[in-house]
Amino acid sequence: MLLVKVYVTLKKGVLDPKGTAVKSSLNSMGFEGVEDVRIGKYMEIKLNIDGREEAAEKVKEMCDKLLANPVIEDYDFEITEV
Amino acid sequence: MLLVKVYVTLKKGVLDPKGTAVKSSLNSMGFEGVEDVRIGKYMEIKLNIDGREEAAEKVKEMCDKLLANPVIEDYDFEITEV
Repeated sequence: MLLVKVYVTLKKGVLDPKGTAVKSSLNSMGFEGVEDVRIGKYMEIKLNIDGREEAAEKVKEMCDKLLANPVIEDYDFEITEV
Repeated sequence: MLLVKVYVTLKKGVLDPKGTAVKSSLNSMGFEGVEDVRIGKYMEIKLNIDGREEAAEKVKEMCDKLLANPVIEDYDFEITEV
């Protein structure tokens, strides 16, 4: 069994209103030194596939087609055995 | 400047309807071998704080108070210098 950790982030230059809201909240709660907050998605996928290469190919396709919006988001993933 | 990568995940046993929906979508798109999908949050925080220990303490407090819901979510973070 493989565990895939997928990180989806907004591309540089894409506005992140959620991140801005969190930054303002942190500032108004008294946290100093918070320069920037960007919010993304994190997914853990359990795959019953043998072979990391095959898994990586599948996950790339999943990201392109469903998990991320390639127009405004970047993604990255790590595959580990469990 | 420090870059903090924060991962927030649902605790084991907490139902994840979003994850279930993504799993069904992947299955109906023809992806085989997807056993489980859990969806969490990923945040990148730029901190203007000297000292990793001080930063780690601050981030822990941010997570407990705002970024995660400790009742149903776990969190983890990594601090790197940028």
